[in-house]
Amino acid sequence: MLRIGVLRFVALPHSSSSSSSSSSSLLFNPISPKSLPPPPVIRTKLVSRSRTMAYTASSGSSSNLLFRQLFEKESSTYTYLLADVSHPDKPALLIDPVDKTVDRDISLVKELGLKLIYAMNTHVHADHVTGTGLIKTKLPGVKSVISKASKSKADLLIEAGDKIYFGDLFLEVRATPGHTLGCLTYVTGDGPDQPQPRMAFTGDALLIRGCGRTDFQGGSSHQLYNSVHSQIFTLPKDTFIYPAHDYKGFTVSTVGEEMLYNPRLTKDEEGFKSIMENLKLSYPKMIDIAVPANMVCGLQDLSERPAESVAK
Amino acid sequence: MLRIGVLRFVALPHSSSSSSSSSSSLLFNPISPKSLPPPPVIRTKLVSRSRTMAYTASSGSSSNLLFRQLFEKESSTYTYLLADVSHPDKPALLIDPVDKTVDRDISLVKELGLKLIYAMNTHVHADHVTGTGLIKTKLPGVKSVISKASKSKADLLIEAGDKIYFGDLFLEVRATPGHTLGCLTYVTGDGPDQPQPRMAFTGDALLIRGCGRTDFQGGSSHQLYNSVHSQIFTLPKDTFIYPAHDYKGFTVSTVGEEMLYNPRLTKDEEGFKSIMENLKLSYPKMIDIAVPANMVCGLQDLSERPAESVAK
Repeated sequence: MLRIGVLRFVALPHSSSSSSSSSSSLLFNPISPKSLPPPPVIRTKLVSRSRTMAYTASSGSSSNLLFRQLFEKESSTYTYLLADVSHPDKPALLIDPVDKTVDRDISLVKELGLKLIYAMNTHVHADHVTGTGLIKTKLPGVKSVISKASKSKADLLIEAGDKIYFGDLFLEVRATPGHTLGCLTYVTGDGPDQPQPRMAFTGDALLIRGCGRTDFQGGSSHQLYNSVHSQIFTLPKDTFIYPAHDYKGFTVSTVGEEMLYNPRLTKDEEGFKSIMENLKLSYPKMIDIAVPANMVCGLQDLSERPAESVAK
Repeated sequence: MLRIGVLRFVALPHSSSSSSSSSSSLLFNPISPKSLPPPPVIRTKLVSRSRTMAYTASSGSSSNLLFRQLFEKESSTYTYLLADVSHPDKPALLIDPVDKTVDRDISLVKELGLKLIYAMNTHVHADHVTGTGLIKTKLPGVKSVISKASKSKADLLIEAGDKIYFGDLFLEVRATPGHTLGCLTYVTGDGPDQPQPRMAFTGDALLIRGCGRTDFQGGSSHQLYNSVHSQIFTLPKDTFIYPAHDYKGFTVSTVGEEMLYNPRLTKDEEGFKSIMENLKLSYPKMIDIAVPANMVCGLQDLSERPAESVAK
């Protein structure tokens, strides 16, 4: 089981001294993996809430979590920014950034005084080009993250059971294939000091009152049905659902709500399959551009280089 | 000072018996004002969190608050749903509903088992028709709410200092004219059991990294500057800013962030006025339809009837 985190960062001398004085301070000191000290790791003391919270927004569900939902109107995509603002570095990650809104996202990260460490995707999108490649060119040191099962290139290829640490907070990785073979759901950690209620970033596996289509990219109605029921509907009912898209203006739902009101996933598996087989959806207009680009995390021109070197 | 609330509701026999058994139960028992018992009021015991939270989402910032942000894409308008889910009735209010998304909003209210009591506007919008009138036709008993200073017709005409109670939670009313003469900002209460951090629904007075225009509907750059500085920037810096619109995909900001990064309102008053005078904005395409409709809370065909009778 892979445990991905910024734990290795926090013992560096600069990280405990320069960051907590002001939320507007910019903390972009990219650290090359080679300069990192070996484990074991010394954890720095947490900054008190009153100091870190003065200028920044938390979801309120954890005193440590800064959370922002961001929208890209053309593809109706949600990008999520999460950061541990109690940690001196304010380490942050973006889930499902879009190429067209990268400048907005990076400005926000800088204004909030965060240190972006991961640019993650829930899956290989067919409707927009991921912003992860562009982010890496603008903020060297950021690592792109996607599932191993997607067969994409990225700095970190992850799988079910992995934990993505950012400061003292983490995301659990759950495999939720069915929309694509490599779809992941990221769920905030279970434990003290983790956000309560929990938050699930479901990509296109589970949408609010809907779900992703299953008719291309290795999609499978059978798999999607089982993914949602075994990996998402087993979470606590008050877990927030934050999908990769919404087309009706919803921003959030809960596991309990979707278990009651999702018009597709409240059916039995045969009923679900029948719905999915009769959607009669058109071929996505962006797919032939988006999928090849997203298979290399938006770094089309670097696609011939091996994954690790793309990170530099 | 007007204190608007549902306190009068909770002593009714039916309201403490029928509502907390299931989050999906529908609680639409419109109560005519005439049937209400006189004060003093008996408060019913709060339902424990574990019972009410099972299927519903809270913002996390208060164990009692259910909070949803909803988006109308054409006018880039945010509608907000707030409810006290610890109260047996789950009383709820909508801020700035849009006519085109009323069915979505009402469905959500029903699915969450809420009792909608208020459909409120921050101001007379020029870019879309409010949903308050349509909501009242579909859910009799809901009261429309807008500022007295707007000179609009509505069931409840409110002003600075009023408190809008929904269950044990409340919104403070602040006058923030400048975009229009009657603009209000609604701020969640200050006190135990109220959401922390506080949340400010600023309408068009303060947008994320922007503000509403000041060149029509009684707008005034001088007034807007002073409204934001005296009524919004004096709130705790971690107060969330939830505006009526966003055009770049932001969903939330904070007072502290806007004090640091709002490109208009970080200027001095003369600098602000100069920016506002040189925006060169086109005439809003919806204004000639929207403003007359919104002056009667979207009930155009009932516009000749006195305000109180519109409520019935």
